Amino acid sequence: MAAAAALAERARPLASPNPGVGALVVNKGRVVGRGWTQPGGRPHAEAMALEAAGAAAKGATLYVTLEPCAHQSERGPACADLVAGSGVARLVVGMGDPDSRTAGSGNARAVGAGITVEELDWDAEQLGLSGHVAATVSRRPHVTLKLAMSLDGCIATSGGESQWITGAAARAHTHRERARADAILVGGGTLRADNPRLDVRLPGLEARSPRRVALTSGEVPEGWTAIAAPESISQLEGLRYLLVEGGAQTASAFLKAGLVDRLLVYRAPLLLGGGTPAIGDVGHATLNAAYAGGLVLQERRQLGRDTLEVYQRGEVERD
Amino acid sequence: MAAAAALAERARPLASPNPGVGALVVNKGRVVGRGWTQPGGRPHAEAMALEAAGAAAKGATLYVTLEPCAHQSERGPACADLVAGSGVARLVVGMGDPDSRTAGSGNARAVGAGITVEELDWDAEQLGLSGHVAATVSRRPHVTLKLAMSLDGCIATSGGESQWITGAAARAHTHRERARADAILVGGGTLRADNPRLDVRLPGLEARSPRRVALTSGEVPEGWTAIAAPESISQLEGLRYLLVEGGAQTASAFLKAGLVDRLLVYRAPLLLGGGTPAIGDVGHATLNAAYAGGLVLQERRQLGRDTLEVYQRGEVERD
Repeated sequence: MAAAAALAERARPLASPNPGVGALVVNKGRVVGRGWTQPGGRPHAEAMALEAAGAAAKGATLYVTLEPCAHQSERGPACADLVAGSGVARLVVGMGDPDSRTAGSGNARAVGAGITVEELDWDAEQLGLSGHVAATVSRRPHVTLKLAMSLDGCIATSGGESQWITGAAARAHTHRERARADAILVGGGTLRADNPRLDVRLPGLEARSPRRVALTSGEVPEGWTAIAAPESISQLEGLRYLLVEGGAQTASAFLKAGLVDRLLVYRAPLLLGGGTPAIGDVGHATLNAAYAGGLVLQERRQLGRDTLEVYQRGEVERD
Repeated sequence: MAAAAALAERARPLASPNPGVGALVVNKGRVVGRGWTQPGGRPHAEAMALEAAGAAAKGATLYVTLEPCAHQSERGPACADLVAGSGVARLVVGMGDPDSRTAGSGNARAVGAGITVEELDWDAEQLGLSGHVAATVSRRPHVTLKLAMSLDGCIATSGGESQWITGAAARAHTHRERARADAILVGGGTLRADNPRLDVRLPGLEARSPRRVALTSGEVPEGWTAIAAPESISQLEGLRYLLVEGGAQTASAFLKAGLVDRLLVYRAPLLLGGGTPAIGDVGHATLNAAYAGGLVLQERRQLGRDTLEVYQRGEVERD
């Protein structure tokens, strides 16, 4: 399943707004087919993997990150039907599809065709499906908040200087995160102060610059979309992954609204004592509130002299 | 040398104000003697290790974290003389002694006795000798600043709650750091607000509670020493290791004075947006100033759900 999830990574971001799925056909311990959702969403991962496997799919195991879709479209047959007719003996699914058009009926169709089905219930984030789950279950994009700060949690010196607190390796990583997002959001203050390009400055990925959104009730330049409140992200069409880049008031607004699913902290080994705090009030006046709105560390890595930490939401135990 | 440095750890804090030294006698690949500075400062590590080795010291190598002392005292002979007469063939020294009474003459005496001497020039911190170097070279104790903060660099919520941001494992580690310090310092505000006990709540180490110092121009309770400015730490007698525990103004005052040698950051996975920043103004109005006053990560470890990072001073490159 980890190998299928790695294949799913290739689908993002070009498959969007379709879920980026990965699939693997294994026959007697040998990989005979691999697939991932293609740009624009078709073919689906299962179709690609089963076509690659051909006759070798007979008696094989199909690993797929998401339950095969059960709904036909004018763009192709339902994957559940393809799987049912493929000759595979076993289907291993990373997670069930929360989309009501599938929601168990994809697996049921495989069972009906005599296939042994195993559903693993992996975490959507591990499977690269957090955008799909957010869109299907919460009717909004999955939100990543990025904070680039000093050791003491500041995003600018007391003199207002902020470019750059983090080093080149951390900034390059941010461009990679931008390339994986469908849209990037900044606050009105940041937009007016920095007029940020928010483009992807990575070789070969320049064309992948995502949509630009500002949290403001004011005017925005051409090419930008304005929303007045974090909750309005649900009205942005076709978004699966939103990257919120700041500044502090925007970060707080999303945190306060409970609309941050994933937090990236790039931390430089500097002290800016008395500078601008990375986030403003998030409504945690008590420690109990802070514990309830805590975070769970998913990943930590060194980026040159800076550290990247990736968090997901989750209650922290008070001891 | 790493084994000798580990032995030196045993000397601290009871050898203070004498440097805690570790020594190891190795003969044909076998450890034949070990020693570390004893409580009160005598016997010295070399004396203990050579006595343990006895006749086996002949032709052996003596590893010692600090250059053997060259000055005799009424409390015992100079270690350099002991080494010279011990029969060892080789002396490996972690670092030269900056104490002017030795400063090369310890090693010279060994060379004069026909012993091969090798000086490794290790870092004082690695050898557990940073307090000795600070006292000898800078005429002040070695200063560790402890900060216990949230992910966003706060030490209290916007409602003023601060106990406890970090979990039980991190707090236990702080007690270990206290036990290793000769004195602990807090600001006048913290003293009045919390009346902290600053004791060592670790089984078997309760008696090791260090001296208590407050940075204040006001009154202090019995048992406390008051200093009016960070620079006055040089007037505190017999201190080798000072632990500064806060609050924010005290932390800033020591950072601004350039009197922090080592920084401990205990970081909890909580966001306190809008709370009290861990440090106030440290005089870094520009990023260049912040880079020049940067920090180098020495160690990172997980303490339950919290992270401990240990930094030393060092310029950070701007890229």
